[in-house]
Amino acid sequence: MDTAFLDELASGSPTPGGGGAAAYGGALAAALASMVCHLTIGKKRYADVEPQMEEALSRLTDLRRELEALVEADARAFAPLSDAYRMPKATPGEARAKEAALQAALKDATEVPLSIMEACARVISELGFLQEEGSRLALSDVGCAALFADAALQAANMNVRINVSSLADEDKALAYERKADGLLRAGRATAQQVAENVMKEL
Amino acid sequence: MDTAFLDELASGSPTPGGGGAAAYGGALAAALASMVCHLTIGKKRYADVEPQMEEALSRLTDLRRELEALVEADARAFAPLSDAYRMPKATPGEARAKEAALQAALKDATEVPLSIMEACARVISELGFLQEEGSRLALSDVGCAALFADAALQAANMNVRINVSSLADEDKALAYERKADGLLRAGRATAQQVAENVMKEL
Repeated sequence: MDTAFLDELASGSPTPGGGGAAAYGGALAAALASMVCHLTIGKKRYADVEPQMEEALSRLTDLRRELEALVEADARAFAPLSDAYRMPKATPGEARAKEAALQAALKDATEVPLSIMEACARVISELGFLQEEGSRLALSDVGCAALFADAALQAANMNVRINVSSLADEDKALAYERKADGLLRAGRATAQQVAENVMKEL
Repeated sequence: MDTAFLDELASGSPTPGGGGAAAYGGALAAALASMVCHLTIGKKRYADVEPQMEEALSRLTDLRRELEALVEADARAFAPLSDAYRMPKATPGEARAKEAALQAALKDATEVPLSIMEACARVISELGFLQEEGSRLALSDVGCAALFADAALQAANMNVRINVSSLADEDKALAYERKADGLLRAGRATAQQVAENVMKEL
């Protein structure tokens, strides 16, 4: 198996880190869900749902690509933040420049994990249909997708929280927190319901 | 980013599937935890815990390699099971041969996800120390590792359940179920505690 991503993750470089892992975990869930579509499409027993299954597969493929790109976007958003934390603040002018750089970098570093949360929530919203209508042979794979999408959603939320806590603009911080809360609550409830339904049927 | 594993997972081939994803998710958690060790080792502020941090890193590296190998082992254990399900059972002789092949294959297909559960539980058992003593800059990464190890443990448990439910040897089935239950309960409790502690500190 190719272990390049895991090797990079394990290294002493701070990126990819938890944010990149969150995006990767969401992509893992989308990939598993895509496999379930593939194992259902073309089977006589599931012919009735084939058009919807094709549409779900198309959306899940797009979501996987988006989450793969978010692994890289998370690393790109971290660099300016890390640079800003290292800026000097010996003089009032330096301190102002540092704070301005920090606040600009924090905005991006918060918005990327928020985008990861949104993509994970959209992956989760495909899973109820797959659990009900997908091939019974792949039922546990739907359950595993729900578990990983749930973990990825929570992991991305942790990354939103760290950065929001340093934001000076309180209105913006509150707006980010509300958005993250809403995505977390709705997404987790659906993902956990899917995982529970799968466990009952196994 | 290298997407080879995700591409294979998303394909119409049944392996890698949920079992392989569980092993990969456990390796992802071990990799994140290893990064936390790397970001702590060599820093003056954490010099006191450096010897233990080095030992944790060594164990986590071994666990990651083990979980990477279990991705492949899961796929290898699936092939004979899939072959057995396809055997004919038109005559009593064929039916007996099919049942024997199936039962032999189910044993391996259950023991691999049980090994994944054991490795995930051992990853989880490293995280409390990292949450308390690891670099504060990597605290959210410990939380993300806990979330993914928890999801991987549950995903592997789903794969134990499917196979156990078809085992004819009831004593063996019960023994597997008890082992999985114990690993699941203890591992989940610790992982959730770590994730909660991280959220409180963020």
